Parts: sequence; structure tokens; C-alpha cells
Amino acid sequence: MSELDTLIQLLAKLPGLGPRSARRAALYLIKRRESLMEPLAAALARTAAAIRTCPVCGNLDLAEPCAICRDPQRDDGMLCVVEDLADLWALERTGAFRGRYHVLGGTLSALDGVGPEDLGIDRLVARLRPGQELILALNATVEGQATAHYIADRVAGAGVKLSRLAQGVPIGGELDYLDDGTLIAALKARRAV
Amino acid sequence: MSELDTLIQLLAKLPGLGPRSARRAALYLIKRRESLMEPLAAALARTAAAIRTCPVCGNLDLAEPCAICRDPQRDDGMLCVVEDLADLWALERTGAFRGRYHVLGGTLSALDGVGPEDLGIDRLVARLRPGQELILALNATVEGQATAHYIADRVAGAGVKLSRLAQGVPIGGELDYLDDGTLIAALKARRAV
Repeated sequence: MSELDTLIQLLAKLPGLGPRSARRAALYLIKRRESLMEPLAAALARTAAAIRTCPVCGNLDLAEPCAICRDPQRDDGMLCVVEDLADLWALERTGAFRGRYHVLGGTLSALDGVGPEDLGIDRLVARLRPGQELILALNATVEGQATAHYIADRVAGAGVKLSRLAQGVPIGGELDYLDDGTLIAALKARRAV
Repeated sequence: MSELDTLIQLLAKLPGLGPRSARRAALYLIKRRESLMEPLAAALARTAAAIRTCPVCGNLDLAEPCAICRDPQRDDGMLCVVEDLADLWALERTGAFRGRYHVLGGTLSALDGVGPEDLGIDRLVARLRPGQELILALNATVEGQATAHYIADRVAGAGVKLSRLAQGVPIGGELDYLDDGTLIAALKARRAV
């Protein structure tokens, strides 16, 4: 059973799957060899072989530069800085942003030895054009905000319009369940109706 | 992004992963191309190519007959009938059973058109030797029990000792949370201390 054990161990490394659910997934795959297991193996191999980090924005895609950087319909006047690919995907799913992106791939962290050069911040600064809007869509965490501040400092004088995502009560959110920080931010940023 | 979408759609078919967690898993894989994505693709392809249904017991394995059927250390005097491969795996994990198995691959179901021939019950009967113990380790569901009854009828006169798994309060189970059926079975099968 060693080949099967290898498969189960690898599946168990996926986020959302533990040892037990990995076994269940392996069993499910084995029973659907032609309809699922072989296509999944092929899709993984093809994607692994084809995926590229976009040299312009840091996005991962099958083309170089990525589909977003190549899209002529996108607005060059807006550049959205995100920490992670997952954040880019989340924003793209909304369909609400039609500008370009810059994926940092992390946040500044003295503790983990992550400096500006690791996040390609020089590359970001080099991309900026006067008059552009630079949207700092970083996570509302200490590290995210520290990184946002650093970028704001670095681009000062480049003639770009800086902005950040609004903070407040999430849609559908109940005040009772929100943390104090969010409530305070929502209160401070209250708007006239 | 179409190759990536295919991958996400396939991952979302795994039990325990939905569309959202499949996206997260795909992202996780992409970022770990060499350490996880390529090994997983290879393990899936190798397993898909090598997996065989054991012609003796119905187990799935990389060898034919399966490792359990070929193991000379196993006790030929005991044959354990299970519905599904998952049940065999669950029993094997306990390490408490050292006999042979017979995997039905389902239960009798007039509604779904599953008859004895679909479950290889003739194959099971043909395997039986007088004096053997046949353990009906079928699920404690209506279908499982109906199938157990059918098998018991079929093997009557073959000279085998029939048994089934004990029913009762699971270890660690709290009476308050158990269904009536389990409590009644546990009461009926009570043992002197």
C-alpha cells in the first residue's frame, strides 16, 4: 500500500484536508479513476509545468506577462497593491476593480527577515507613473499596515494619489460579533446619511 | 486562467473541499510547485495507473491479488465481509483483525437495482470453506442489515460459523447523545459484570 500511503500523505498537506479526510479523498479518487483521478493528475502536472510568476506584477499565471498585465482593457491609471495572490483573486472575483495589480508576496517582517527587496518594492516604485492612483489593499493586520506605511513613505514625491481600502462593519456583519478595533474604525469613519 | 480553473474545479470535487477551499488548495499547490504539486501529480498518476481490484476479495491494491490476500500470516479461518473499501481500511487501522476480507462494494438495493450479482456474493459463497468463521461487518443501517440477512440465508448449510459486530454504546459515548436504537440494542445485549 506504500504508493497509496504516499498519495494520502500528500493529500493531507492540502489546506482543509487532514489525515482522515485525505484518506477519504484518496478512496474517492481511487473509485473515480477515469472521471477524476487521471484528469486531476494531468491538470496538476500541466499547471505545475506551465505556471509562471509575472515579471511585471508578481501574479501567477500561465503566460508571461500575466493575463491582467496584458489586458489592454485594464485601466493603467490605477495600481492595486496586494499582499498575496489570494487577495488578488478575491478582488478579481468581485469584478469591481479594472486597474492593474502589484503582488508583494508577503509583508515586511524584521523577525522573519523579509525586507523591501524581498517584496519587490523597488519594482513597484519603478512601475509608478505620476498621476496614477496607488491603492494599498493590504490586510488590516499590524504587518499589513506597517508595509502599507513603508510603501506610502517610499512613493512620497512620485506624484501618485495614495488610497487604501475603507475599514468598517462588513456587509451583513452584526455589531455584537465584531471586534473592538473594527467598531472603533467604523465609528471614526462614520458617514452622514 | 483556464488551466487553473480546470484544476480548481477538479479539486472541488474531492470530498471535504468546496469551491472556496479548492481555490485555497490550488493556491497552496501553486506556491509549492516542487515540494507538493509535482509530487502529488506524480503520485496520482502512478496510483491511477497501478491500482487494481483484487479478483479474490474486491479490495483495491497495487498488486493482484491484493496484499491482504497474498499475506501468508493472515488467518484463513476468518473471513470478514464489509460493504466498502473504507470499512476495510477502518478495520485494518485497528490492527485487531488478522483474517481475510471480502469487499462487497455496496449493499443490496432493489431501488437502485443492485442485486447479489453486483456485489459478488456468488464469489463470496465460492470462497467459503466449512469450519470458517464469516464475520458480517456490515453497517448498522437498514440496507446493511438487509444485505447481512441475505448473505446469512445464502451461506446457510455451507458449514460456516456466522457472526456479526457487537452493537452497543460506542467507547466514550454519552447515553444522553445516543439514538434510541443504539440504546435499545445496548440494553438487549447487556452483559453480566
